[in-house]
Amino acid sequence: MPKIVLAQTEVIPGNPAKNTQKVLAQIEYAKAQGADAIIFPEMVIPGYLLGDTWEQNSFLRECEECGREVIAAAADIVVLFGNVAVDWKRRNNDGRVRKYNAFFAAQNGKAVQPDNMPYPFVIKTLMPNYREFDDTRHFFSLQKLARELGTTPAKLISPVSLKIAGRRLRVGALLCEDGWSDNYELTPMAMLQNCGKIDFFVNISASPYTLGKNERRHKLFADEAKKANAPLFYVNNVGIQNNGKTVYTFDGSSTVYDAQGVVRAACQPYCEELKTVDIDELHRLPPVTEDKGDATAQIWRALSYGTEKFLASINMKKVVVGISGGIDSAVAATLYAKVLGKENVLLVNMPSRFNSATTRGLAAELAANLGCPYMVIPIEESVCHTIKQIEETPVTFGREHFNLQVSSFVAENIQARDRSARVLAAAAAAFGGGFSCNANKAETTVGYSTLYGDQAGFFAALADLWKHQVYDLARYLNEKVYAREVIPQGIIDIVPSAELSAAQNVDEGKGDPLKYPYHDFLFRAFVEKWQKATPEDILTHYADKTLDEYLGCAAGTVAGYFGDDTRAFVSDLERWWNAFCGMGVAKRIQAPPILAVSRRAYGFDHREAQNGAYYTRNYLRLKEKLLL
Amino acid sequence: MPKIVLAQTEVIPGNPAKNTQKVLAQIEYAKAQGADAIIFPEMVIPGYLLGDTWEQNSFLRECEECGREVIAAAADIVVLFGNVAVDWKRRNNDGRVRKYNAFFAAQNGKAVQPDNMPYPFVIKTLMPNYREFDDTRHFFSLQKLARELGTTPAKLISPVSLKIAGRRLRVGALLCEDGWSDNYELTPMAMLQNCGKIDFFVNISASPYTLGKNERRHKLFADEAKKANAPLFYVNNVGIQNNGKTVYTFDGSSTVYDAQGVVRAACQPYCEELKTVDIDELHRLPPVTEDKGDATAQIWRALSYGTEKFLASINMKKVVVGISGGIDSAVAATLYAKVLGKENVLLVNMPSRFNSATTRGLAAELAANLGCPYMVIPIEESVCHTIKQIEETPVTFGREHFNLQVSSFVAENIQARDRSARVLAAAAAAFGGGFSCNANKAETTVGYSTLYGDQAGFFAALADLWKHQVYDLARYLNEKVYAREVIPQGIIDIVPSAELSAAQNVDEGKGDPLKYPYHDFLFRAFVEKWQKATPEDILTHYADKTLDEYLGCAAGTVAGYFGDDTRAFVSDLERWWNAFCGMGVAKRIQAPPILAVSRRAYGFDHREAQNGAYYTRNYLRLKEKLLL
Repeated sequence: MPKIVLAQTEVIPGNPAKNTQKVLAQIEYAKAQGADAIIFPEMVIPGYLLGDTWEQNSFLRECEECGREVIAAAADIVVLFGNVAVDWKRRNNDGRVRKYNAFFAAQNGKAVQPDNMPYPFVIKTLMPNYREFDDTRHFFSLQKLARELGTTPAKLISPVSLKIAGRRLRVGALLCEDGWSDNYELTPMAMLQNCGKIDFFVNISASPYTLGKNERRHKLFADEAKKANAPLFYVNNVGIQNNGKTVYTFDGSSTVYDAQGVVRAACQPYCEELKTVDIDELHRLPPVTEDKGDATAQIWRALSYGTEKFLASINMKKVVVGISGGIDSAVAATLYAKVLGKENVLLVNMPSRFNSATTRGLAAELAANLGCPYMVIPIEESVCHTIKQIEETPVTFGREHFNLQVSSFVAENIQARDRSARVLAAAAAAFGGGFSCNANKAETTVGYSTLYGDQAGFFAALADLWKHQVYDLARYLNEKVYAREVIPQGIIDIVPSAELSAAQNVDEGKGDPLKYPYHDFLFRAFVEKWQKATPEDILTHYADKTLDEYLGCAAGTVAGYFGDDTRAFVSDLERWWNAFCGMGVAKRIQAPPILAVSRRAYGFDHREAQNGAYYTRNYLRLKEKLLL
Repeated sequence: MPKIVLAQTEVIPGNPAKNTQKVLAQIEYAKAQGADAIIFPEMVIPGYLLGDTWEQNSFLRECEECGREVIAAAADIVVLFGNVAVDWKRRNNDGRVRKYNAFFAAQNGKAVQPDNMPYPFVIKTLMPNYREFDDTRHFFSLQKLARELGTTPAKLISPVSLKIAGRRLRVGALLCEDGWSDNYELTPMAMLQNCGKIDFFVNISASPYTLGKNERRHKLFADEAKKANAPLFYVNNVGIQNNGKTVYTFDGSSTVYDAQGVVRAACQPYCEELKTVDIDELHRLPPVTEDKGDATAQIWRALSYGTEKFLASINMKKVVVGISGGIDSAVAATLYAKVLGKENVLLVNMPSRFNSATTRGLAAELAANLGCPYMVIPIEESVCHTIKQIEETPVTFGREHFNLQVSSFVAENIQARDRSARVLAAAAAAFGGGFSCNANKAETTVGYSTLYGDQAGFFAALADLWKHQVYDLARYLNEKVYAREVIPQGIIDIVPSAELSAAQNVDEGKGDPLKYPYHDFLFRAFVEKWQKATPEDILTHYADKTLDEYLGCAAGTVAGYFGDDTRAFVSDLERWWNAFCGMGVAKRIQAPPILAVSRRAYGFDHREAQNGAYYTRNYLRLKEKLLL
């Protein structure tokens, strides 16, 4: 009989007024449907990823005011929602005003006090402080509060008693990480059960999407519901939020687990949706089996959604993409054309003497296939002018003069910067938009790019994708999204190359120094392994002949590239480790925002210092032994 | 009689092997001096600001191995030092291996177990998790351990008993934040005293320098020593460490407080130094009164030290500085000339049609005064070529063609990018170095700069200085550092201007839209106030006529600029708040590393999301009232 609405709301980070307006409208809608309760996500009023906006007291007052309005609207309906809660009389450990990440349960226009809690709200117990999460920086945890009050978390954690559809129900209220307790000393869900029978659990979340997250969540949450023998409502928001360097999509995917852990209802991912379920009738609903598609389908969904929302959030309606005839820029162009409409994406090919007729033709073909506006701006004249100016302008030094010389390596980077900072930036401004950074994760890892050149752009949509994932995406776009060869097969087949010198001639099969079937996986081990890999780990597995398996690349990959040449293997390893820890860091510091898809996107989820490469003694000893 | 050495060591972040070599040599030196004990800073083996290097198990093993060597060297001398400690059998809350920020006390080749501690080291109790600090991300605190063991911090916190110079002494061991407990529920120093008489306290730190920090530390630590009636040894490292976006100097300034809180010995700031004191003879030492100089002198010391060390750390020996004839680039050029030697700093002036003879002359004069290599590379031809290419290249769109148009605003940014990404980047590469970003904190706040233009560079040495601090520094450089007018007075006197259009003609007294005597202070309130100011706070103080005082600018400043024109005041406020929260964030995401001087430098100490400007309802209501 109790009809409960899961409000999978799109949250606008940092905009309490807009979010509150939405929440109030959704409450009215739920009332009109005759619902008994409505559940909103964690931090539905302020948003979640706000940087240090939490240090603005005026913003906190605004959130409180908005929260009071939502509570007042809880008449003839129970409203459960997340907000920041402020205790103006107490202090955080940084001396700032006390803030809690709070779960409010409102009824009859009032916030209901949980049984043993000193405040009229539930406080988040487990504070994630890894990956991109920063909860402990801003919010005082229940554990600290317990210590301050001279008690224990177990004595504070308690259900909220609510009257729903005429029944007195005891609700176990959880905030996001409270349900992911596997590595903590405390298990809030189990502790709630120590207070007697819980009628149902509610986990309100602000949980960013990454590949594989929902599979882990289903396993964990189904298990917990079953153990507790009570239904569990998981409500997550949709939209995007960012912490500057990294943009996260929030997929919603709100889910109802019954008391046996069976999924009985689920909201569509990435859709704002109000879903009503009758808690007594859960067993009548057919079990939900979700077909989320394969990894590439999921990546495409996150990528297209995230890019569309990010563009809207910064009010950018037009984008310029430099297309080289290579795979990364082709996928980027196709993405933006799909998201913005072809007429809003200007494609620019910028050949120099090193660009083959092959890739110039492929770029033109791509533009024609997409139907986007297209222009060709050669950079030869400008690059020559720059080199001439640098080399021919005398440098005065006291009474002497000298001249600078431009090496071929320096000339390569001049080309890359000429394309981006001179042509694309100007074309984008004239076109009324920004220009995209088409970098993938492999080149971002080792800084195989030029600062203010191909590393530049307003947004790096593909920079959390390894090169093989970019290829998968190209094939997926042709086969599934466009159902025609919009990205020319020639672009998929050609050797990847920067075409900045004669040494990178694609027609001679020459290209990037990166062996993607190996380096994609080597680099992934550096950055994505939960305990990050270093040359010591790599070399140990190499010596044990277990490296393919350790890295997750195809069997025989390492032997295929290096045979028995340990010296070549070591030299390659050190080259890229030096790059990853050296120029890679320097370039990432100045890189555009990256759209996160994996666990461990660059940016706030992979914190790094410009400290240079380090080799442990174990590595050096093993290397010496192997190279004897 | 017990002779104790304060080892104010320079720590190389992320290089345990080098740090250990240094530590072992210093132990040998101390032994040769007949010292009884030597104290090293916090995390002297690994360094402190390492990003997620803590997630590399091989790095952790390396630190452990180095630590064992240091412990083994503690023969005939007591060695106190900081290191990471690992419990490989336990887990952190993120599922990774358990790590502690630890204080080791070693004697007779063994680590001594504190009286009530389950490990042979002291664990940091208070974990800073504000500003740039990230301790809780990586290290398990004593508080969590106590909960895990079913006990309380009070029962674990205990002194280390050591035999020093034949006496059994009880040492109160603290790690950095443990001594800055004013906002915490726990006070480790007081808790240590509950265990009975402590003979002396040791606070080992890795404490970054910011303006005013040492004044606060002296007050706090002197007070604590006095309360405890025991001497306190504070040992801090020197060197620089960074977290990517922000570079911190560590000033050392290690200090001995006697049992009355009087400073009896202090190491020189920013110098590696071994200082020996006899704990029985402290009262015979004359009280130390430090003359740290005024704020500008302190800023210069941090700036020149930090820049020199940062250049060395990335192995950069030459720098190119674009000099416009304005104040920021003049100070940057003077800084680099001092740090690297004039022959290693190439100055480049890049006039367009909008650069006055005045500023071009001032730039040449500056170059001559400094004696640096100097070249003039006009950008006019290249800018015209770019505009022509953009405007004259037809854009193909289906069967149609159109042309892009370059507005005067777009042309301004083309100039800025032409200077940095085309000329300076190429000149720097040819010269064998990087080019500097000369931005100050005011323009960095509101993004009054061009991406890939004047916002670019390998390092932004001045970007934590407000414009008035840059002027102070210019005068200081002339008067104190060079004792001659190395920066021409004309550069100090001229109106600040970007000279990117006729509207910014300096000879007509036209220049930047920033009113620095007001905006410096307004912006400072946005970013540096401990509870950050928003338009609501600003407008409230404006209405109350207390804004000058609230901002800390000269009395009468606000009235001087705006008179009674509230509309103009509001419009100015919203213009810059929009810029600070909008393009300012977007540009900072891609900005170079900044050298920190203030509390709240941009970067990791001021976390921000690209969420746009928000105005609270209180602000909107007040604005409506005032504009009625």
